[in-house]
Amino acid sequence: SVNPDLGSERQTASFSVEKLTALLDGGAEQTQIRRAVVEAIESDPVFSRENQYFQTQNERYEAAVRKAVHLQKKMHEMGWTENGPEYKYIYRALSGDVAFLLHRVFMRSISVLGSDKQIAKWIPLATQHKLIGSYAQTELGHGTYLQGLETTAVFDSATQEFILNTPKISAMKWWPGDMGRSATHTVVFAQLYIHGKCYGIHPFIVQIRSLQDHSLCPGITAGDIGPKMNFEHVDNGYLLLKNVRIPRENMLSKFCEVRPDGTYVRQGSQKINYFTMTTVRISLISDEVLTPLMKACTIAIRYSVVRRQSKLKPGEQEAKILDYQTQQEKLLPQLAAAYAFHFINDYLQELFNRGYREIQRKNFDMLPELHALSSGFKAVITQHCTAGVEICLRACGGHGYSLLSGLPSLYTKILASCIYEGENTVLLLQTARFLIKCFMAASAGQPVPPSVTYLAAVKHGKCPAKNKLDFLSPDIYTEAYQHVAVRLTSSTAAKLQDLIQSGVKKHDAWNQCTVQLVQAAKAHCHYIAVKNFAETVEKLETKAGIQKIMKHLCDLFALHGIFSNTGAFLHDGYTSAAQMDMVTASFLDLLVVIRKDAVPLVDAFDFTDKSLNSALGSYDGRVYQRLYEWAQKSPTNQMSPAYERYLKPLLHNTLSKL
Amino acid sequence: SVNPDLGSERQTASFSVEKLTALLDGGAEQTQIRRAVVEAIESDPVFSRENQYFQTQNERYEAAVRKAVHLQKKMHEMGWTENGPEYKYIYRALSGDVAFLLHRVFMRSISVLGSDKQIAKWIPLATQHKLIGSYAQTELGHGTYLQGLETTAVFDSATQEFILNTPKISAMKWWPGDMGRSATHTVVFAQLYIHGKCYGIHPFIVQIRSLQDHSLCPGITAGDIGPKMNFEHVDNGYLLLKNVRIPRENMLSKFCEVRPDGTYVRQGSQKINYFTMTTVRISLISDEVLTPLMKACTIAIRYSVVRRQSKLKPGEQEAKILDYQTQQEKLLPQLAAAYAFHFINDYLQELFNRGYREIQRKNFDMLPELHALSSGFKAVITQHCTAGVEICLRACGGHGYSLLSGLPSLYTKILASCIYEGENTVLLLQTARFLIKCFMAASAGQPVPPSVTYLAAVKHGKCPAKNKLDFLSPDIYTEAYQHVAVRLTSSTAAKLQDLIQSGVKKHDAWNQCTVQLVQAAKAHCHYIAVKNFAETVEKLETKAGIQKIMKHLCDLFALHGIFSNTGAFLHDGYTSAAQMDMVTASFLDLLVVIRKDAVPLVDAFDFTDKSLNSALGSYDGRVYQRLYEWAQKSPTNQMSPAYERYLKPLLHNTLSKL
Repeated sequence: SVNPDLGSERQTASFSVEKLTALLDGGAEQTQIRRAVVEAIESDPVFSRENQYFQTQNERYEAAVRKAVHLQKKMHEMGWTENGPEYKYIYRALSGDVAFLLHRVFMRSISVLGSDKQIAKWIPLATQHKLIGSYAQTELGHGTYLQGLETTAVFDSATQEFILNTPKISAMKWWPGDMGRSATHTVVFAQLYIHGKCYGIHPFIVQIRSLQDHSLCPGITAGDIGPKMNFEHVDNGYLLLKNVRIPRENMLSKFCEVRPDGTYVRQGSQKINYFTMTTVRISLISDEVLTPLMKACTIAIRYSVVRRQSKLKPGEQEAKILDYQTQQEKLLPQLAAAYAFHFINDYLQELFNRGYREIQRKNFDMLPELHALSSGFKAVITQHCTAGVEICLRACGGHGYSLLSGLPSLYTKILASCIYEGENTVLLLQTARFLIKCFMAASAGQPVPPSVTYLAAVKHGKCPAKNKLDFLSPDIYTEAYQHVAVRLTSSTAAKLQDLIQSGVKKHDAWNQCTVQLVQAAKAHCHYIAVKNFAETVEKLETKAGIQKIMKHLCDLFALHGIFSNTGAFLHDGYTSAAQMDMVTASFLDLLVVIRKDAVPLVDAFDFTDKSLNSALGSYDGRVYQRLYEWAQKSPTNQMSPAYERYLKPLLHNTLSKL
Repeated sequence: SVNPDLGSERQTASFSVEKLTALLDGGAEQTQIRRAVVEAIESDPVFSRENQYFQTQNERYEAAVRKAVHLQKKMHEMGWTENGPEYKYIYRALSGDVAFLLHRVFMRSISVLGSDKQIAKWIPLATQHKLIGSYAQTELGHGTYLQGLETTAVFDSATQEFILNTPKISAMKWWPGDMGRSATHTVVFAQLYIHGKCYGIHPFIVQIRSLQDHSLCPGITAGDIGPKMNFEHVDNGYLLLKNVRIPRENMLSKFCEVRPDGTYVRQGSQKINYFTMTTVRISLISDEVLTPLMKACTIAIRYSVVRRQSKLKPGEQEAKILDYQTQQEKLLPQLAAAYAFHFINDYLQELFNRGYREIQRKNFDMLPELHALSSGFKAVITQHCTAGVEICLRACGGHGYSLLSGLPSLYTKILASCIYEGENTVLLLQTARFLIKCFMAASAGQPVPPSVTYLAAVKHGKCPAKNKLDFLSPDIYTEAYQHVAVRLTSSTAAKLQDLIQSGVKKHDAWNQCTVQLVQAAKAHCHYIAVKNFAETVEKLETKAGIQKIMKHLCDLFALHGIFSNTGAFLHDGYTSAAQMDMVTASFLDLLVVIRKDAVPLVDAFDFTDKSLNSALGSYDGRVYQRLYEWAQKSPTNQMSPAYERYLKPLLHNTLSKL
């Protein structure tokens, strides 16, 4: 039976939840396939996550390995393949709580960086799990700046081997997943030396553990890097190499080869390789970033219509906390952002598919734009969604702080996405570099890629809005966002030029502008996200109320962005103070409108109770019962030795006299 | 030996670190006492926190109990007493990682709410630990809104007892510390009923566990609420009461008494009781909020001069990451905030001491102002510091994400301070209510408390700054903050009145203004913090370079607040766009100035390595060695059953055929 406070929220939906779910899935057939996968995974007790919040890091690791092994069997049973339509739903259904994710990266890097002969040798071994792979790039002292890696691979022509070393403690490989305890092999990135000359970073396949008894190979020191804020299920590892010899054939050699005599040969274009990096950044958005935010919104919004606190009107029952303006202002913009980023993710995916087709035709023209967009949006979306999950957690008060709410784990996991696959500030500065370059080109009348043509059209007008309803016009707010993006890019470009002209060295000038460059990159992405949301709404069918509610969310996303960053819009007078008051009024009005559909809007995300794994967020809203029943199962409700050892002697006054 | 990259940072300090430490401590003697306490605690292995990041919740609880019991012995040995000068440093030296904190609240509530007879009976028992107490107020379904509590205490005149019940699941007591596993007694807050009439919330002493064998008393169901985001060492508990009978004497009766015949008698003024609540909010700021931010700054800043990444200048060594403007912009404002809030804490403490003296003279005039300031600053400081710790964590990249950095635990713990002792939004609205009231009074020419007299003096001028150096004048920026606080309060008051005049009911009108009321309350606190910092700097002695560096930090704190919230200052044209560019320029200039003293400024916080408990933050800066050595001790480096169970059969292809 559904908690009536939650049930009543569903009776007044202004749109068809099922149709919105289908829209989010990309069609009703996709919804069907997804649900079948979820059902198969969730009905299998091996994949249960129910005890997750009670488990130690060791238990989490063991469970993840068990699941990974069991998954092989499950896929076979169900007839799922890596190329089938179900595959993309499996990881989501498991909530990522499974081992051997780096084994997949190991395989992909061999496929991309290896020669045909290497692929033919290693991929079947990996596919059949005759080995377990990892990917060892990051070092204790080196992350984003790959040229700084210190691991060395020296070619010994006498034995036709490479000798690998991590010569200093800061050179130790650190962080690779699956490497701490599981992997038998890994791809090591190292500085290649031939006859004393350094040729830069190259990838090498290195066996680290025995295939017989899993003992470490000679010259190898490896282990687990210990506790982290989340990712307890992953054995992130460290690796020291001391004169480890591997055959010449183990250098991945699609692009570069070392001949037996030590001749170094470069072949083909490596550009496709950079493309892989951008693809990874885009592909993580959906599973690692949007899903957690959508889950957090589901949990917090369902809880906020079940939880009652204080009286809104004297004499009445305590009010649902979602009826408070402050609670709406916390949660509903996060909901709008989840939709906005879902649609921008579709946009990016499409762009990248197009880019991939071009690249296969050896046309690399789109690469700089793709790189700038993937870097910028990876940073902006991870940052925004991480903040959003935290807001959801805090909006649930004390119960949000219990692990049983599910929110702390969502937060501690999504936080990592701001750091991995490119630290966000570094990425935003790459986007900014592209923007400055394009702005200069556009100013000089040269052609620029489609996403930045707007930089050429610097307009000095004013926002034409006359009343608060005007701010519900996508043209009005999209143009305001565009104006800000242009202003921030152009003013920072001007500052940069001024500095250089005044004699500051180029790299110093760049550093002195980076705080503002980051702002420009964010404004660019925010503009594109707003524009894309508005265009998506435009194209939706007008039936079933979906276009209408999406339009409200688009307005809310746009106006919340202005409301939370008014200075950027007020700065040069493009928006007046009076107009800003209209923005505030429209924004606050929208909260009331969207609040009515808040529960249906999270229902449309279609998370099962098992996938939410939350005492606060279940579909039936029986929050207090769940919290109580679940808490009783906690290991902290077993007898503690603390009683006999300390409490009893204290209470009985039999502790040795103080 | 100190890492030279860290050592060199200390050689150029512009001020005396030791003198700044003494200033922060409130005098060199205080520093001496503090260090003696820290030394005594840290040299005792029972208090070690070294294994903390590896321990389960059960192990953390047991350790906390062991420490609490041992602390009694230690205090006796050292001659420390609860009234001695050392006492305030003990908790800080333990980093709060100790049990029986609620036992102290139990004692305090009896002292404040109990009759002399009750105090005489219970306090000695509690002091000698013949019982262990807790404090049971919050319920599963009820937090901030105390009138909503559902637990009942019905007076039975026949037996001269109260019969206590938690009639619904939402009435279950939930969260009280020390109650899940340790406590034998607790103070239960319940609705008092006499002859069918409800007299509201009252406190009752209830025994919940046997003093002999610790078994639950008849009618009691109690246990631990399970895993949380932090506070693993605390046994937060739940409590169900079913017809639990307690003698009439167990109602704490300093202010209200039930006579044997059921007559209800109210006596004395309860106002002092409200004062206790405000005092708690202020007292938590130092230990629970400022110390964590100061620790996080110490860790992140030391790490940022040891970590090198990418090249700032071509051809040179990789740069210290603190030399990047973006890293400075993340960390240095947090450092400035730590100092700003340290000084505002001094200000609040002083104000409260004064208030306490007045109240003891039965003068309650200061109460509303004290309540507004304690609520507002509790919210603003916890929020700001929580965000600051998160920024520090993220600024350390991957290593910040390791528990061994210490940063995740600082973050997950400080986060709770935004929720407990009054949820922040609720508190800010209480401050706002006070502001609106005072604004109305001031507008009507009535007198208002000192901290809000500025609301009366609405000025419509413009910011007089002419160049970026003008923004290093405290008068200029303090006035700008004041202007914003007045504007936000007055415009929201106007909106509120407009709504009411247009026919909206008062409570609805209030709700429709709450988002803006929160902004006004924050602006008020921010203004006072800036003003107080500037005044504090003014009063510092000019020797030893301390005043100079504090002035820089004050400027940075003020300008960062403007830079991050430009809209509030631009809105009505008080600050022009050109002036805002000057603010930005001065702010960015200050980063370079303060960066030079960043390490000495965190050294002055005087944290020992043991108290930081961080692989990144140690005084000698040997980051990589510590991470590696520490990780090797992790339980995840013991043999896992996963190998024999899953990995070996998989690799040997002996898993039952897929």
